[in-house]
Amino acid sequence: MSTQPRLVEVRQNVLKQNDLLARSLRERFREAGVRVVSLVSSPGSGKTALLEKMLTLLQSQYHVAALVGDLATENDAARLARSGAAVRQISTGTICHLDAQMIERALEEWKLDELDLLFIENVGNLVCPSSYDLGEDLRLVLLSVTEGEDKPLKYPTIFNTADVCVITKMDLADAVEFEATAAHNNIQSVRPGMGVFEVSAKTGAGMDELLRFLSARIAKSEEV
Amino acid sequence: MSTQPRLVEVRQNVLKQNDLLARSLRERFREAGVRVVSLVSSPGSGKTALLEKMLTLLQSQYHVAALVGDLATENDAARLARSGAAVRQISTGTICHLDAQMIERALEEWKLDELDLLFIENVGNLVCPSSYDLGEDLRLVLLSVTEGEDKPLKYPTIFNTADVCVITKMDLADAVEFEATAAHNNIQSVRPGMGVFEVSAKTGAGMDELLRFLSARIAKSEEV
Repeated sequence: MSTQPRLVEVRQNVLKQNDLLARSLRERFREAGVRVVSLVSSPGSGKTALLEKMLTLLQSQYHVAALVGDLATENDAARLARSGAAVRQISTGTICHLDAQMIERALEEWKLDELDLLFIENVGNLVCPSSYDLGEDLRLVLLSVTEGEDKPLKYPTIFNTADVCVITKMDLADAVEFEATAAHNNIQSVRPGMGVFEVSAKTGAGMDELLRFLSARIAKSEEV
Repeated sequence: MSTQPRLVEVRQNVLKQNDLLARSLRERFREAGVRVVSLVSSPGSGKTALLEKMLTLLQSQYHVAALVGDLATENDAARLARSGAAVRQISTGTICHLDAQMIERALEEWKLDELDLLFIENVGNLVCPSSYDLGEDLRLVLLSVTEGEDKPLKYPTIFNTADVCVITKMDLADAVEFEATAAHNNIQSVRPGMGVFEVSAKTGAGMDELLRFLSARIAKSEEV
């Protein structure tokens, strides 16, 4: 496969361009005073359910908005719009991740300085999104109890590029015989010291703690 | 992003080479009389659990083996080896899919004509594996009840490249309020006429039907 090294080289150029654009996005977010939190996970880990819950709960206190990436459909944007927050869908076609340019385009016409917090929901994928900086301040990696405790070991890169892990669907923990200790050990072995929250978007369990953490982050950004 | 078209072009060359190699693999499998079934799905949809169940149940009747792809760890191979079948792990590093060359390499030293059935478990990913032909006869796409009924609409390409859909973790259907009709409608709207099996590797429900289908496929290949 003689083209393989060439593919890697071209991919690295694309990544370099992405990193430059992400850096300028990060600067723009900082100047506008908006804190940006991205969510990555497998398909079906409950990113949209968690995001809907967060948007609904944070709406009373902050100006929040969300960008949601998917290969196809506008389902998630429609679902999230029920929270009352501004939401825009990014359709990636056959591309397995968002990139900084997609974010930049989706933000056209949006007044960033009117926002406190912008969420970016990436395409459901535990591999591709790890290489693309989106200019976010904080990257949450979700791990649902139904996926198996070994996912951090199998997909170490995405856990390494994330800042915080959120274990989702805790309401199903008993039904799937979720082994919390094994999951926590696996997370820590891949990314020692990583903060971990356990939540259920369905019952609301654990949401307070996660939102307190996010609010503290927003406050910190306002001080800067 | 001026490098984007170039990336697409190089990627197409890689795909072309993959397709050629996959074609020769398919020919080799046919000559050796081995039927090859691949499994694709999200991470955590239960590919390994289903595969372990199938290997165990098919062992008494057939010579079965499996190749399992993961970014890191040999966990799945160790787990599957408990079935008694020959199993080899393929570690892809940071690559989000298997390709034909990885399959060819992993098969070195294996006597294909002693096998009836070879399973290939792809990396957990609903995007990347769809573009890579592995020389398989049959591609199963798994959809677990915990992922949400809308996955076929969000990831149409992978459903389009698969032959059969297996809905997994049916034992959790009630706990997650799985809407079977919506799931089936979404599958059919993306890939009209697609065969669908509902199984639980945990309880064994639905396994008979799936194995009868696979056995019929193997018999058909022996006739050729």
